Amino acid sequence: MSLTALADALGSSRLVTDPDVMDAYTRDEAHLATPGRPLAVLIADSAEDVVAAMKWATAHRVPVVPRGAGSGLAGGATAIDGCLVVSTAAMRTIVELNAADQLAVVQAGVVNADLDGAAAEHGLMYAPDPSSYQISTIGGNIATNAGGLRCVKYGVTRDSVLGLEVVLADGRILRTGHRTVKGVAGYDLTGLLVGSEGTLGIVTSATVRLRPRPPREPATIVGSFGSLRAAADAVAAVVRAGIGPSLLELIDRATLAAIDEWKRIGLEPGTEAMLIAQADGPDADEAATAIERHFTEAGADFVAVSRDPAESAQLLEIRRLAYPAAERLGQCLVEDVGVPRSRLPEMVESIEEISRRHAVTVMTVAHAGDGNVHPTFVFDRLADGSVPDAVWTAADEVFRRALDLGGTLTGEHGVGVLKRRWMALEVGEAGLDIHHAVKAAFDPLGLMNPGKGF
Amino acid sequence: MSLTALADALGSSRLVTDPDVMDAYTRDEAHLATPGRPLAVLIADSAEDVVAAMKWATAHRVPVVPRGAGSGLAGGATAIDGCLVVSTAAMRTIVELNAADQLAVVQAGVVNADLDGAAAEHGLMYAPDPSSYQISTIGGNIATNAGGLRCVKYGVTRDSVLGLEVVLADGRILRTGHRTVKGVAGYDLTGLLVGSEGTLGIVTSATVRLRPRPPREPATIVGSFGSLRAAADAVAAVVRAGIGPSLLELIDRATLAAIDEWKRIGLEPGTEAMLIAQADGPDADEAATAIERHFTEAGADFVAVSRDPAESAQLLEIRRLAYPAAERLGQCLVEDVGVPRSRLPEMVESIEEISRRHAVTVMTVAHAGDGNVHPTFVFDRLADGSVPDAVWTAADEVFRRALDLGGTLTGEHGVGVLKRRWMALEVGEAGLDIHHAVKAAFDPLGLMNPGKGF
Repeated sequence: MSLTALADALGSSRLVTDPDVMDAYTRDEAHLATPGRPLAVLIADSAEDVVAAMKWATAHRVPVVPRGAGSGLAGGATAIDGCLVVSTAAMRTIVELNAADQLAVVQAGVVNADLDGAAAEHGLMYAPDPSSYQISTIGGNIATNAGGLRCVKYGVTRDSVLGLEVVLADGRILRTGHRTVKGVAGYDLTGLLVGSEGTLGIVTSATVRLRPRPPREPATIVGSFGSLRAAADAVAAVVRAGIGPSLLELIDRATLAAIDEWKRIGLEPGTEAMLIAQADGPDADEAATAIERHFTEAGADFVAVSRDPAESAQLLEIRRLAYPAAERLGQCLVEDVGVPRSRLPEMVESIEEISRRHAVTVMTVAHAGDGNVHPTFVFDRLADGSVPDAVWTAADEVFRRALDLGGTLTGEHGVGVLKRRWMALEVGEAGLDIHHAVKAAFDPLGLMNPGKGF
Repeated sequence: MSLTALADALGSSRLVTDPDVMDAYTRDEAHLATPGRPLAVLIADSAEDVVAAMKWATAHRVPVVPRGAGSGLAGGATAIDGCLVVSTAAMRTIVELNAADQLAVVQAGVVNADLDGAAAEHGLMYAPDPSSYQISTIGGNIATNAGGLRCVKYGVTRDSVLGLEVVLADGRILRTGHRTVKGVAGYDLTGLLVGSEGTLGIVTSATVRLRPRPPREPATIVGSFGSLRAAADAVAAVVRAGIGPSLLELIDRATLAAIDEWKRIGLEPGTEAMLIAQADGPDADEAATAIERHFTEAGADFVAVSRDPAESAQLLEIRRLAYPAAERLGQCLVEDVGVPRSRLPEMVESIEEISRRHAVTVMTVAHAGDGNVHPTFVFDRLADGSVPDAVWTAADEVFRRALDLGGTLTGEHGVGVLKRRWMALEVGEAGLDIHHAVKAAFDPLGLMNPGKGF
């Protein structure tokens, strides 16, 4: 295994072997995953160098762990012993921004917010906005099929990816998709690669769809409710009415209490849940009025509508504080189940019941308009550094409950290493077999991110 | 090869071997494709019987050609010698229509319009509306990833499919996807199967997304233009402005002339193109006014806006007459290229130039808002029944031009048998290799619809 041969084959990309430097490249934000020790880390700056790395890895049978910014929550970028880590985070060029065709061609390391900012200069936006949008890369967003707040209206990452440039395990370059909004020549390999968590190839570049930016600031509607059920009813009413909010978030009492304790947001006693919605587009005012009415009719104790950008930003900030507020209280396992939208009340109530029964603190926020629920398990590690059994037992029950309700283990974070053992429950035996066969079709030697996803 | 063994294994499905009856099941609407002679036709009425058929086919190495209503335009349902044709068109049950979760579970043979009609009773719609919507099945729409008029706003079939039940080549049942709007557990097998033209398995049931039905009739805007370029400029302006029409169709002079000759629509001399747009939703009036203004500013000779349902239907009828008007003039090859939206004028002008140079009549309509162009080649067969060389030569040039402009061979019809020989041009050698490997992952014996797609 000559790293020298790899170093010689590279252009200007950096090959790191210093253990202290490598350490930062061995993990993502899934703190419960235990990383192995890589052979080396490649900080790639071109597709050609990724090609060289994969040819070398194939020749020497070295497993490869691709990564973007490392903001993933499921351990998809966790290094394994003896692997080559390939980071595309330094490939930050926006190659083309085409306003007429409302698309951009970007290298994998372009940060989500940077692309959205560049699009804004042309009156456009890059719609997918995971909470990590200020640091996460388009390549990482594609690997996990990242969601976000505004995907309730504009769809997930997959809905914004038109085509990909991918380096395959054997070093060949595969180009998928096109620059058109429609196209059915052959299998949808673009869609297959989005969300494949680095197990099929390494995305080096993407052609993504941009959308017209709403012409003005959205209207923001906030409502507080005396019961979770009332808040969930309000969500169902908004969805049923076809209003199409651009954001519809639920925050539970435990999360609100943690934020209030920290930032003093003036939480009223008796508030069990808060909803924050936004409406953009030409009918934003009409939509905001309708959402306000649905909140009131569902029994909100308090509803307010703001059309002031500064005030809207303050209201959204409450939502963004949910995770840091949880982190103040202990170790966090951020979960990510999804259920059909009508089952949201049952899911949230089940989470509360499971939390009580196992005496595990769980704080829940939800992309309620999508039925995507993030229960965060908050706990202290045991003396030996391990996770209390009750945490995984409670998480197991949450996963099974989501599946029983017709839902999914993961709405937007991915399976990574943390959720592999539940995969057969969701996709079934035939589904797992097909996953293995598809994986072998792309990567017959099993070198691409082994041990991740399924 | 004992058909008796198959017949014995079936429940109430019909097995047809009468050559006269079988004939209707050997072809679709791709009249240039030459069908072979099947061994038998299975008119399935349950997934269990499709399972039995695939187990039998695998045991006896019999190739299988799946089909829905047979309205395809690329020959994806063309029978081959010695095959078993499996029709799912008789599986017409809407298993569930869930208004709260805005989804339906349907058997593969449910007709598109029947599903949309059932959804309408709940204030919902099934958005994908291929021109064949009154006869084509959801299973067939899924196999081809069908588009349609309103997909400029609501997306193609793939964007409305949440999950599938598929019978694999070996007779196992694969269930993909979920009942949630988001989900990233494992590979997007649902998306991979949509548009796979029956080469990976047979769809027996689907969970599809329904959307809120716009609360009232759309506004319709029609404009006539003295040049194709002006019409294309109007399209670009509407797209750029982010208006989001629910329909935006272009009809060229040759098509208008054929319709006028037949139905006397009062075509003005000098009209080179017509645009028909619709706007729905709460801001329909505002959008219609904006579209009218963009048409005028781009140089329309005439613009009219109608909010009257009967008049709107009449205007749309002009668009629907395009294909029957062409069929009156001779044999038709309906093509289906897609280009980035800004390249629409170049594509349409290239088609006119190619038509003139090869002296082949071409009549063009386009889902202009998507850059999806349907040039219909109209010709007389030669004395021996064959297609004049000039037709395929001209079509070849149209395909290559679309690819040169960053486009695709097929926006919504599929590759079938008619476009296979151009596939390598679009997907490349690595892409073809991956197609074959993915195919083998699902269907190692190569029994599923051999000779189709790639």
